[in-house]
Amino acid sequence: MRAVELIEKKRDGKELSEAEIRFFISGFVKGEVPDYQVSAFCMAVYFRGMSEAETGFLTRAMIASGDVLDLAGVPGPLVDKHSTGGVGDKISLVLAPIAAACGLRVPMMSGRSLGHTGGTLDKLESIPGYRTSLSLEHFRAALREVGFAMIGQSETVVPADRRMYALRDVTGTVESIPLITASIMSKKLAEGARSLVLDVKCGSGAFMGTLERAEELARSLVRAGRSLGRETVAVITDMNTPLGRAVGNFVEVKESIECLRGGGPQDLVDLTVRLGAWMLVLGGVARELGEAEGRCRGALADGSAWRLFLRNVELQGGDPLVCTDPGRGPRAAASRELRAGRSGFVRAVEARKIGVAALLLGAGRERAEDDVLPEAGIEILAMRGQEVRSGEALCVLHSKDSGRLDRAEALAAQAFDIGADRPSVPASLVLRELRDT
Amino acid sequence: MRAVELIEKKRDGKELSEAEIRFFISGFVKGEVPDYQVSAFCMAVYFRGMSEAETGFLTRAMIASGDVLDLAGVPGPLVDKHSTGGVGDKISLVLAPIAAACGLRVPMMSGRSLGHTGGTLDKLESIPGYRTSLSLEHFRAALREVGFAMIGQSETVVPADRRMYALRDVTGTVESIPLITASIMSKKLAEGARSLVLDVKCGSGAFMGTLERAEELARSLVRAGRSLGRETVAVITDMNTPLGRAVGNFVEVKESIECLRGGGPQDLVDLTVRLGAWMLVLGGVARELGEAEGRCRGALADGSAWRLFLRNVELQGGDPLVCTDPGRGPRAAASRELRAGRSGFVRAVEARKIGVAALLLGAGRERAEDDVLPEAGIEILAMRGQEVRSGEALCVLHSKDSGRLDRAEALAAQAFDIGADRPSVPASLVLRELRDT
Repeated sequence: MRAVELIEKKRDGKELSEAEIRFFISGFVKGEVPDYQVSAFCMAVYFRGMSEAETGFLTRAMIASGDVLDLAGVPGPLVDKHSTGGVGDKISLVLAPIAAACGLRVPMMSGRSLGHTGGTLDKLESIPGYRTSLSLEHFRAALREVGFAMIGQSETVVPADRRMYALRDVTGTVESIPLITASIMSKKLAEGARSLVLDVKCGSGAFMGTLERAEELARSLVRAGRSLGRETVAVITDMNTPLGRAVGNFVEVKESIECLRGGGPQDLVDLTVRLGAWMLVLGGVARELGEAEGRCRGALADGSAWRLFLRNVELQGGDPLVCTDPGRGPRAAASRELRAGRSGFVRAVEARKIGVAALLLGAGRERAEDDVLPEAGIEILAMRGQEVRSGEALCVLHSKDSGRLDRAEALAAQAFDIGADRPSVPASLVLRELRDT
Repeated sequence: MRAVELIEKKRDGKELSEAEIRFFISGFVKGEVPDYQVSAFCMAVYFRGMSEAETGFLTRAMIASGDVLDLAGVPGPLVDKHSTGGVGDKISLVLAPIAAACGLRVPMMSGRSLGHTGGTLDKLESIPGYRTSLSLEHFRAALREVGFAMIGQSETVVPADRRMYALRDVTGTVESIPLITASIMSKKLAEGARSLVLDVKCGSGAFMGTLERAEELARSLVRAGRSLGRETVAVITDMNTPLGRAVGNFVEVKESIECLRGGGPQDLVDLTVRLGAWMLVLGGVARELGEAEGRCRGALADGSAWRLFLRNVELQGGDPLVCTDPGRGPRAAASRELRAGRSGFVRAVEARKIGVAALLLGAGRERAEDDVLPEAGIEILAMRGQEVRSGEALCVLHSKDSGRLDRAEALAAQAFDIGADRPSVPASLVLRELRDT
């Protein structure tokens, strides 16, 4: 078998066999198939796509490139959630404790922020002391005791994905549905989850800009899950507007704590409960979504999710006092309110602009090697649909100095579209739910 | 400017500017744009193509990546011919002396055999002592004195092409019309020719299998020539059958000498004269093709082309006695006749099979680093259209040992399609001629 022949086969729109895809991926990881062949292959996949079978083979080959977490000793249904990335998306921080409180085990392997989207690891690490690099022993123990644990991707799990993603990032081949599918599913399946709920974000602040593209990705993910024997549900959700009010690192932790203590913005709570309900149904601890939603809301109302969150923070080295009293957390040395230039209704808060503004404040990273500021971020005061008067505060920017505030200010202000007519705000962020395709 | 953005632009079907293409190619040669970005770019070009303007920019950027031969001191019209590669294509060996005898200057930079196609340099070097690596000084002197000179591509001329071709070869991106165009035109223009006749081969033994693809390439080449200010004619010729009777290295030199001495197979002579006529018209030494053809035939009939050939062999270090008496040339230690299994008409001699059989005999190379045997090759005795009786010889294989003959025998035999009906053999190999498009 020669790598160039496999590239040509894909280029000509033919279907690759499992053995061919395995040869290519294992050769890549061993250094026998060079980067320049892999990038040409990825571009051919970009144009030609992959069949359902090929996408499954690719996912499997990527899983086989490294270690698979052994969670055999962990009792209870292992269910995870993954989001394709958005602005203000702190759902994992609230959802994992809810699901654990309802009897699931949630082995959550998360990523870091990149570009305008935030990363769960960066948010958690804004809690002083919190560590996301646990040994497998420690991870298993945390899962057993608390019911969930949060880690970053280990170097030895799906090395093919890390290397391929780095290559795709610089060769214009990120936006390929089968490559995205294999990247997400290989990581999620290697971490040991038995079933999976996927939050496929759609809109200006997401990688999938249109419902059509989001549906295509959702279908591909659900099919890959099925072909790998893991039940998978994809929930397509609106990401034109940031989720909740907080965008950044510790500001999002604070908002997550509000939710866990029974408060928090309604859009965030509702979507978290919906995704949690799907997890409960897939994990077999609830029979239908209505019952499952009730149990998730119960775990928020009775404080059981909040107590598990605090226990997790302790176990992963974080300071629980910062969580019970967020005033002790990282504080921004410089903050600034942005005010409405006219009276009217907030017709839109553009997620991408808010995301990039938060990045400019220091909450995110432009390149993988950048550091983030735990205290940086944006608090949105005027949400979509709200009426504001000229001069009223729209949002507050936080960072370490006024230079950073200056960089972000104009973009953050542009994110708010204020007009005379009251806009219709959809009752739910959920656009579609796919279980079988 | 970032390389990844240019890849994405091309991937999305947008047109690149001259500055963008120059940035990409010069970055590649300087090692600033890595191979994996160039291969992804080439695959995007494979799918999206390039506009006429982009192809011109790419050609120019590749020329600018290295030295351009300075032939300012050479008097007379500088015209060259290039073939896209075929089986038994020894036209350059006959054509260059004819054109020189008619008053042109032919600075011919040729390639080596690869795969099933032969290479002019390998054929010339089968003449003992013949050297194709001349200094620029020597090359200019030979051009001035003889009117033509034959060299290989220097390391310093169009380095971008050599590196890009090596990459395309292993990434499934060879068969892209704009990339082929820029590769051919950059080399031909860097060698200093003012006008150019291109022999675009079409058929089973050529890179372009169909007339449609050959026309597409021909149009692209003529347009690139025009956009670079070099008048270019493309002649599309049939390459389903080997050209002439000889396929290999010294066997082709012998056949070329037969032509130069007034003999040789008609298909070879006619096509050489036609291409020569176009060169004379482009070089301005003949007004129209009829007159030009007459002058080319005259240069063969009066021995002037033959005398220039001998003078060139001497100047480039070859042994002229081997040319005047080819019996002194490289001799095959092992030869074998293949005989017809049935009586009938030769309906086809498949060029690709003959080409691969010659390769197996040692006349060509599978990989760029292989050596070739000067004595290896095939002499075709029964040409297309000819009637044969069962047991009559179809061809003779030549190599250094019987093991090699064994390897090539079956394939060479399969190349001959013998049937009951007399096939119609086209009067001319010329399928189309493109001057303006």
